[in-house]
Amino acid sequence: MPPPAIVLVRPQLGENIGKAARAMLNFGLTDLRLVSPRDGWPNPAAGPAASGADVVLERARVFDTVADAVADRAHVYATTVRKRGVTKPVVTPEVAARAIHAEAGGSAILFGPERSGLETDDVALARTIITVPINAEFGSLNLAQAVILVAYEWSKHVALASPPEVAIEPPAPQNELEGMIGQLDAMLEAANFFFPPDRVPTSKRTIRTMLTKPAWSSQEVRTMRGVLSALAGRKAHR
Amino acid sequence: MPPPAIVLVRPQLGENIGKAARAMLNFGLTDLRLVSPRDGWPNPAAGPAASGADVVLERARVFDTVADAVADRAHVYATTVRKRGVTKPVVTPEVAARAIHAEAGGSAILFGPERSGLETDDVALARTIITVPINAEFGSLNLAQAVILVAYEWSKHVALASPPEVAIEPPAPQNELEGMIGQLDAMLEAANFFFPPDRVPTSKRTIRTMLTKPAWSSQEVRTMRGVLSALAGRKAHR
Repeated sequence: MPPPAIVLVRPQLGENIGKAARAMLNFGLTDLRLVSPRDGWPNPAAGPAASGADVVLERARVFDTVADAVADRAHVYATTVRKRGVTKPVVTPEVAARAIHAEAGGSAILFGPERSGLETDDVALARTIITVPINAEFGSLNLAQAVILVAYEWSKHVALASPPEVAIEPPAPQNELEGMIGQLDAMLEAANFFFPPDRVPTSKRTIRTMLTKPAWSSQEVRTMRGVLSALAGRKAHR
Repeated sequence: MPPPAIVLVRPQLGENIGKAARAMLNFGLTDLRLVSPRDGWPNPAAGPAASGADVVLERARVFDTVADAVADRAHVYATTVRKRGVTKPVVTPEVAARAIHAEAGGSAILFGPERSGLETDDVALARTIITVPINAEFGSLNLAQAVILVAYEWSKHVALASPPEVAIEPPAPQNELEGMIGQLDAMLEAANFFFPPDRVPTSKRTIRTMLTKPAWSSQEVRTMRGVLSALAGRKAHR
């Protein structure tokens, strides 16, 4: 299944086209289509704003109409805030991303001009509407931000988005933990920390809980035991 | 649980502080903290870039150190690309958002300066690292984009992000669908469409499948029947 095409409908500023290209490539999308860009194409303001996503701009195709731009695609999505009278399904970028990966035939996602958004006639070509759920009291997404959120959700389902992996050291085996706790307990007993006697079990349990919680690795447990030994030694030498 | 604080560490451009504020407010975040902003604070370039998110800028607090900025928070996250030698858990914005909503004590999310990102000493204050999974061959997220992705994921778990609802007309009752299919069948029979005879059942089934698929509403079925009637009438009048 081809990745979705990003269709900018009558975009106004070359800078925003460049930013959209950058947003796309960040998440692995490269099929950019422009419908009647206001200032023509190519646009000298697009390159600098793309911050290196030149490959997307170079491959961008220009169309006269939205219908031409989506002619080869089976599924057309329109990103817009909900409009009165629209009776198409409205989905979040998350839901749309899942559908786009599941659907055969290829998808195109329409984004409207900066100021006005998509016209009713543009939306009419789409089967589904994508709306980013946004602060009802402050909805101010710009074009590139709308593109990046949709591209980001799409990328979650492809290999490039596999979560980064870090080899976290596993927690030390329990006997090493016991050794450390025992060492501290002995030191605290020697320091008459556990008083009065009837509260000893509770106090020891509290300390055990605290030392169990961090899931220290073997190396970290050794470090901590070194710290305790140093403390015990210093005390002994006082 | 308070929403997470967004901590911009040594941000360089006022414009980017404004854009970050806009990104935050779009998804309901308002607690902006600035650590040693390069050009001081307030910064006249921030307001215009905030596109109306003035309330976030007005409430922004300035701190000398990262430690001061996160002093009241129990969970500190550092957004960064993975660095050699980091042995903290690395999570996606999605996973971090779930954790932030589940954790008591409040969270703070660190974002580094535009050019260099967070220093090792900044990351050291965090328990967890957030990394946006990005195109390995083109990773070029700017500050406001990183903020918006994290804020967007956070917002998914709060009320403002409830998916928009549209009252889609339900499909017409089956008998209305049957009426429409019957009308078309009769017209096609009259037009000798069904030929040869042994393929009639298959052809009718194909048409039924096609007309069942769109899940037209009662109104749409009525419209289609009107279309068919018009076609039949036109033909009759030829």
